[in-house]
Amino acid sequence: MSARLVSVEKLALGLQYDGAALCGWQTQPNGQSVQDALERALLQFAGVPLATICAGRTDAGVHATYQVVHIQTGLERPLQAWVRGVNRFLPHSIGVRWACVVPSTFHARYSALARRYDYWIINDPVRAPLAQDRAGWVFRPLDVEAMQRAAMLLTGTHDFSSFRSAECQAKSPVRELRQFTVERRGRLIRVRAVANAFLHHMVRNLVGALVYVGTGRNDASWVAEVLAARDRTRGAPTFSAAGLYLTHVEYDPALELPPADENPPFLA
Amino acid sequence: MSARLVSVEKLALGLQYDGAALCGWQTQPNGQSVQDALERALLQFAGVPLATICAGRTDAGVHATYQVVHIQTGLERPLQAWVRGVNRFLPHSIGVRWACVVPSTFHARYSALARRYDYWIINDPVRAPLAQDRAGWVFRPLDVEAMQRAAMLLTGTHDFSSFRSAECQAKSPVRELRQFTVERRGRLIRVRAVANAFLHHMVRNLVGALVYVGTGRNDASWVAEVLAARDRTRGAPTFSAAGLYLTHVEYDPALELPPADENPPFLA
Repeated sequence: MSARLVSVEKLALGLQYDGAALCGWQTQPNGQSVQDALERALLQFAGVPLATICAGRTDAGVHATYQVVHIQTGLERPLQAWVRGVNRFLPHSIGVRWACVVPSTFHARYSALARRYDYWIINDPVRAPLAQDRAGWVFRPLDVEAMQRAAMLLTGTHDFSSFRSAECQAKSPVRELRQFTVERRGRLIRVRAVANAFLHHMVRNLVGALVYVGTGRNDASWVAEVLAARDRTRGAPTFSAAGLYLTHVEYDPALELPPADENPPFLA
Repeated sequence: MSARLVSVEKLALGLQYDGAALCGWQTQPNGQSVQDALERALLQFAGVPLATICAGRTDAGVHATYQVVHIQTGLERPLQAWVRGVNRFLPHSIGVRWACVVPSTFHARYSALARRYDYWIINDPVRAPLAQDRAGWVFRPLDVEAMQRAAMLLTGTHDFSSFRSAECQAKSPVRELRQFTVERRGRLIRVRAVANAFLHHMVRNLVGALVYVGTGRNDASWVAEVLAARDRTRGAPTFSAAGLYLTHVEYDPALELPPADENPPFLA
């Protein structure tokens, strides 16, 4: 990032946050959301109110290492100031990681080609205090191969009605789940989901179903029945928010936004 | 762990804790220490007060993935109950990971042959919210090779007066630093210190000195001058508690206590 002053129409900001003590992205009457904290910080930094639009409206307790937000402003500030300057006014749980000038046609939500969520499960017979708020916990041994077989059956373009919450406001329940993979790294299991977009609670509901398969409660083929039923009551309970991280949003590569981290996001 | 009832003289418990909201190991008037929480949980579980002795008296904000505590009791309980039963009464930030019967001569502190602390630094120009309370942060690029050269000069049996706090109550300032290594893993740097025992603030003071070398403020050879001076005022400031983890305590292998994790402790 150069120290040159930029007068811009539109900026994209990359955010990281620890969602444990936050009530999600969307602005709330109590002011405890990511959007509330960010808009307060932008007001303090810029001296004028700046509206924010994000790529993925994460729920309470959900983390992000690559949330993308756009703002519209005519202010002249070095790009770096939009990172360090805004960070001075944000709580410790939220940080701007990068800032980029984007064309006036850019929209954090509508220009996004895909979202990537990683869900981390700690699979351990005994509770791990350092994983509290940072991972979902399953104390029964999980069969990762069975989970991966189930994940394959869910990959593709489907009506995901069985995996959306009752409060979901999306017009269509059809989504393209482009990647859905399960990998074990010792006691940690990473479930990675990439889709054009996600329904409300979709990743947590998908992970809940995979865990039913992983513990042997249901066969892998059961998830195909749940999918076909288009009925939320046929699935497994929504899994904990603690292990869910928004880890990338894909846009047109011509925009040259920074790449996502490939590291586990606990400390990224 | 078997479900057989064991009537024991002495038990060793392995603890993990997230030290961020705790005021360290040692019992405090406000009751917010690890020892206070553990003794309250043991009282609730066992119905009688049980005194605890630990291997390493960690400070406020310091984490542990392998703290060892011993208790003396004649109670008959399955070993597993000492893990799951006590965990029911502990706050989320503290957990018992394992329980083992040990000989009556065992003492968590005096029988320990060595302690291992890992210090994690996040080396990144921009603040990382998910690393808040979990790692020390250095925004200037760190030269890990220079830090490792400095670490070599500190390894061995020395008078560590230059790296002990004014409040240190140890009779002798001499300690044997058996291993002191610096490794980079992307944006994370792990400083590992193994010694027979540590002085108060010793690891954080050693890390502070290594950071002075890593940023180029001082040459690696400077740490040898600081060591030789036996004067705390010659060193660097005490580094943040956030990145410090007690990750192992070594005892006689004949005791067959569980091994330490080799994974990064953020989620261990």
